[in-house]
Amino acid sequence: MNWALIMAGGAGTRFWPASRLARPKQLLPILKSRSLIQETVSRISLLIPPSRMIILTQAKQIDLIRKALPQIPKRNFIVEPVGRNTAPALALGALVVNHRDPKAVIFCAPADQLVIDAKKFLRAVRAGIETAKNGGVHVTFGIPPTAPETGFGYIERGTATFKKSGLSVYEVKRFVEKPKLNRARQFLKSGKFFWNSGIFIWNAAWFLSELEKAQPALLQQLKKAVVSHQALRKIYPTLENISIDYALMESAKNVCMIPGDFGWSDLGTWSAFDKIWPKDSLQNASRNRLVSVDSSGNIVDGDSKLVALLGVNDLVVVSTPDAILVARKDRVQDVREIIDILKHQRLEQYL
Amino acid sequence: MNWALIMAGGAGTRFWPASRLARPKQLLPILKSRSLIQETVSRISLLIPPSRMIILTQAKQIDLIRKALPQIPKRNFIVEPVGRNTAPALALGALVVNHRDPKAVIFCAPADQLVIDAKKFLRAVRAGIETAKNGGVHVTFGIPPTAPETGFGYIERGTATFKKSGLSVYEVKRFVEKPKLNRARQFLKSGKFFWNSGIFIWNAAWFLSELEKAQPALLQQLKKAVVSHQALRKIYPTLENISIDYALMESAKNVCMIPGDFGWSDLGTWSAFDKIWPKDSLQNASRNRLVSVDSSGNIVDGDSKLVALLGVNDLVVVSTPDAILVARKDRVQDVREIIDILKHQRLEQYL
Repeated sequence: MNWALIMAGGAGTRFWPASRLARPKQLLPILKSRSLIQETVSRISLLIPPSRMIILTQAKQIDLIRKALPQIPKRNFIVEPVGRNTAPALALGALVVNHRDPKAVIFCAPADQLVIDAKKFLRAVRAGIETAKNGGVHVTFGIPPTAPETGFGYIERGTATFKKSGLSVYEVKRFVEKPKLNRARQFLKSGKFFWNSGIFIWNAAWFLSELEKAQPALLQQLKKAVVSHQALRKIYPTLENISIDYALMESAKNVCMIPGDFGWSDLGTWSAFDKIWPKDSLQNASRNRLVSVDSSGNIVDGDSKLVALLGVNDLVVVSTPDAILVARKDRVQDVREIIDILKHQRLEQYL
Repeated sequence: MNWALIMAGGAGTRFWPASRLARPKQLLPILKSRSLIQETVSRISLLIPPSRMIILTQAKQIDLIRKALPQIPKRNFIVEPVGRNTAPALALGALVVNHRDPKAVIFCAPADQLVIDAKKFLRAVRAGIETAKNGGVHVTFGIPPTAPETGFGYIERGTATFKKSGLSVYEVKRFVEKPKLNRARQFLKSGKFFWNSGIFIWNAAWFLSELEKAQPALLQQLKKAVVSHQALRKIYPTLENISIDYALMESAKNVCMIPGDFGWSDLGTWSAFDKIWPKDSLQNASRNRLVSVDSSGNIVDGDSKLVALLGVNDLVVVSTPDAILVARKDRVQDVREIIDILKHQRLEQYL
């Protein structure tokens, strides 16, 4: 049967002041009225029923996440005792699924990504499930790049080996870690490099056996951990903080890639909305009421307030009920530094 | 007797979004919890009782202004049918005062200026009243410049002719209209040029006779206008829009100046707060909670919100319950353009 594993552990500090400890990014209604995690679950539920969706999250978010997803059975929520990286998380999810359904094919995705074209997305996932279902191959989704992004890992595709559901499935030549700008420009130009979306599809049993070969200690520990909540709380914090790319994919044979031309964004920082929110003639992106004079390239979320810009360029302006952020667009990845000051000044109410 | 004439007619669009049609600048609590007009009246009331204060304002503001100043008798509020310039306003006020008290000495000041040192201010006003009381001389107050401002008219002082209340009273050599930057720099350097504060003291009867010589038509019309509300409403709008500087002072003999070293600001635009609100080590001025990273020279009023700045310089950020302004500091004088757009887009609720 087909299963989904939704990873909803992130704190999303990069979207401060909209995201907070108590309201991480996946719980924000970024584009529509529903939150990102609700959109993610709703999108995939046309292929996979809520009874076969596993939500992986953290203790401090579990209440809000369960409230946001009432259609998912209580036993399908797994609480990570601490945040680890994607290798422990994906392995934990696969073990749980495999225990319930030894023949499971498992679609794995972060809860907080944006997909504009759900139809194209589902077609790609269907092709991925077809490709992965009998094991023997890791299925990844590569996003055709639209800019020389240095914040993503890249996947270099090889030849198209076959078609599934009408889509070409490519061999993966190699995974490349976040490149410098010059290299990212070459990648963009070549047409052969794709952004690593962090979405995977596996036959769960085959994936676990492959991971066991590559990371025997990790699997050994996790198998002990899943026997009880108590064991999980004890063992999980001791696991290595390691990404699935590093733990398995970069060295794996039999990796294939399906191009994901479905309007994807990982929504890494506020600057992602440059390509998502409606723009005026001077490239000011906003989803609320905006008035501007001699201002261009700004990204504005006034919440319920009118925002007026006068002679300013390339800023991010975000208003929330208790805090306002004004940042240079090329500095928004450093919003963490604001959070550090808030912590230092004991302004916990804003965290 | 000593009288005060407080000019409270301005709309203060330059302080949008804090100032609105229904809440002009003089009604804003800019520095303290009381509004500027309350501060102005309270400051002068140590010399002049509320029963001898005349408030000149406009119909759309009269209710709020009267509410702000319950100590002032109802008959002391004069409504200008339309906004005219300072010559008609000062002459109208002087006629009203002169009618009630033919021996009046009249202190005239805008309602929306800031004075930090009330003690020094009162000392200067006392010297001014002493100088002006018997007529024969126009008393002005010149502010020692602290920057080469191009937004003010200047007064060039001549010799110190005598002392009153321990203060030197200077002859005025000439009035100079708003200078270009280079000239303003020379003015600043010379030590002989002072900002024209728009504060005057006159013997009312003598002032009216001088104005009648210089502007006979204006006085003739105003004398007809003050006989009834009806006449005022009919005649006042026909008067010339002319400043007192242009109508009288620039050509007058017998003008003297008292230096006003009392922490004065006309609060012309948001950038005035650069010198008024507390600053952090990177010259960010704010009267509310501010957190900043790699940001300098900003002026911030977050109202009840925390404002966080990241990598931005020389901005003005103002938040109100329904609107936010983000402007380059050297463009704040153009906030009028925002208001024009709001009108054009029929967003009247923000005016």
